[in-house]
Amino acid sequence: MPAASDNVLLVLDLVGVFVFAISGGLVGLRARLDLFGIAVLAWVTGLGGGIIRDVFLADVPPAGVTNPWYILSVVLAGVVVVLVQPALRDLRRRNPDLRLSRIANAVKYLDAVGLAVFAVSGATKAISFGAAPLACILIGGITAVGGGAIRDVLARQVPEVLRRELYAVPALLGATLVVVADQFEMLSVLIVWLAVAVVFAIRVAAIIFDLHVPKAPHQGASS
Amino acid sequence: MPAASDNVLLVLDLVGVFVFAISGGLVGLRARLDLFGIAVLAWVTGLGGGIIRDVFLADVPPAGVTNPWYILSVVLAGVVVVLVQPALRDLRRRNPDLRLSRIANAVKYLDAVGLAVFAVSGATKAISFGAAPLACILIGGITAVGGGAIRDVLARQVPEVLRRELYAVPALLGATLVVVADQFEMLSVLIVWLAVAVVFAIRVAAIIFDLHVPKAPHQGASS
Amino acid sequence: MPAASDNVLLVLDLVGVFVFAISGGLVGLRARLDLFGIAVLAWVTGLGGGIIRDVFLADVPPAGVTNPWYILSVVLAGVVVVLVQPALRDLRRRNPDLRLSRIANAVKYLDAVGLAVFAVSGATKAISFGAAPLACILIGGITAVGGGAIRDVLARQVPEVLRRELYAVPALLGATLVVVADQFEMLSVLIVWLAVAVVFAIRVAAIIFDLHVPKAPHQGASS
Repeated sequence: MPAASDNVLLVLDLVGVFVFAISGGLVGLRARLDLFGIAVLAWVTGLGGGIIRDVFLADVPPAGVTNPWYILSVVLAGVVVVLVQPALRDLRRRNPDLRLSRIANAVKYLDAVGLAVFAVSGATKAISFGAAPLACILIGGITAVGGGAIRDVLARQVPEVLRRELYAVPALLGATLVVVADQFEMLSVLIVWLAVAVVFAIRVAAIIFDLHVPKAPHQGASS
Repeated sequence: MPAASDNVLLVLDLVGVFVFAISGGLVGLRARLDLFGIAVLAWVTGLGGGIIRDVFLADVPPAGVTNPWYILSVVLAGVVVVLVQPALRDLRRRNPDLRLSRIANAVKYLDAVGLAVFAVSGATKAISFGAAPLACILIGGITAVGGGAIRDVLARQVPEVLRRELYAVPALLGATLVVVADQFEMLSVLIVWLAVAVVFAIRVAAIIFDLHVPKAPHQGASS
Repeated sequence: MPAASDNVLLVLDLVGVFVFAISGGLVGLRARLDLFGIAVLAWVTGLGGGIIRDVFLADVPPAGVTNPWYILSVVLAGVVVVLVQPALRDLRRRNPDLRLSRIANAVKYLDAVGLAVFAVSGATKAISFGAAPLACILIGGITAVGGGAIRDVLARQVPEVLRRELYAVPALLGATLVVVADQFEMLSVLIVWLAVAVVFAIRVAAIIFDLHVPKAPHQGASS
């Protein structure tokens, strides 16, 4: 990869931290937490996946506690959540027809961005630390779903990664793309962004068309 | 230990990964997750304990993301869960008298196998990494109960390790056996399997005879 | 810091382990767990924060599994919980007016002690491992709130760190005090204890005067 790759990874990571932190903050708002509870949920959601990745790669202390940009990104996300919330409420008051699910969908798209950038940045960081291909793919997937899983456990929701159709699958696919490109020595900034786009596109398609992997056979019959 | 010890440990680990992954998959089935949710629960249950162990021993990236055999074992467990489920359902339809608790008991026995092999393999790996005796015992115990605890937290159940009579105790006992044998330079493949058998036997006895450590005094009086 | 600093840190840590283990044990008692469940909750609550700290600092295996004093501290806390419980019950029987909230408050004060000593000891250990100032502050905060968060997740409660007014804030403040003192090369045993006192005082003031950071604007209006 060209010398600029570190910058690309940092940008991917900061975008991922920001959008996941917003999703964490919104979950905190919905759960009626105070400002600091919201900040804590934003922090673990934005940084959780990357912290697991860094512990797995022995890159400690993790970037999530050492890199000021990460912290700034989380704080910014917290400010956005708190500022945007009254606007959302006003919007709903003026448009009683505006369905809550529309707003929830907006969150889903943000979440899809985070999933895409973290899957790719996680796999790429694992490659640059010399991890085996299989490990790079799985670490990419864990980076992508980790923060959201911790968020949901703390907020006492069923984790999205267990519930959602086509959630971890595109993340693993994006990580695989990056790893395969690296195996053929074709990993470039272009490929990185392409992989991000692929994960995002699949996830968005899954949201729009309600795609999902099948349930276990005969599941429905017993309900 | 003889040169074959690494193979013994790998076999123990793969058996543990397999049975715990099945237990995770069954919990996912019961929670009506889709196929990928079941796969994720199987993955964290089968590999969670070993991942904590490897992080504690600085053996990262953990075997749970690097070793293809582990992943294969988890995938196989997922396939078994999905294939076996309709058979279980048919069985129940033909034998309405067959109590669900019987099937749940079968899961408990599988779980006992996982507890036994992980306690012993966790302690043995810690020994081979030069950890102090106390650390080896506790790491063995954590390896044995960790995956199940993560499974229960994700699936929003009270963790078995908090609920169950004589669950962590036999795990710690098995790890202690291995550590004591090592202190006397008597650790052999035979001792390893003996320790596995002891943990399994105690746990099975606890299931059959409903053994448990006492509750705190006067607990019952207030209910 | 003077040569005695290691002892000071060990004392801080053992006090923190002890009081947090008691809080974990009490939560276990309230949840009607058996003795071993209580012991497990005491263990993770007392040692959880320090284990995360040690993993972040690559000081593995963590002190929570290697240091016999830590284990002894947890075991002692478990014994105290089991012994004290009937006395508490008798007290309540003889004084029906004694409000349960009084006893819960006693737990809050113990918890405040743990928060204070762990924030300071976490930050100081991170400094001695050469972590960056920002990392030291955040690691101090995580050490202080980590064990309680794991306890609450396992016991299926909303984590205190999300719920409580002025909980993580004083912990981060205490860690910051220590880090600033270190930057000015003024870190001494006196400063360490002073920082502990500041965290404890703020937390206790928050409990007594029910201080809290504001909720997100307009939160109340929608309820």
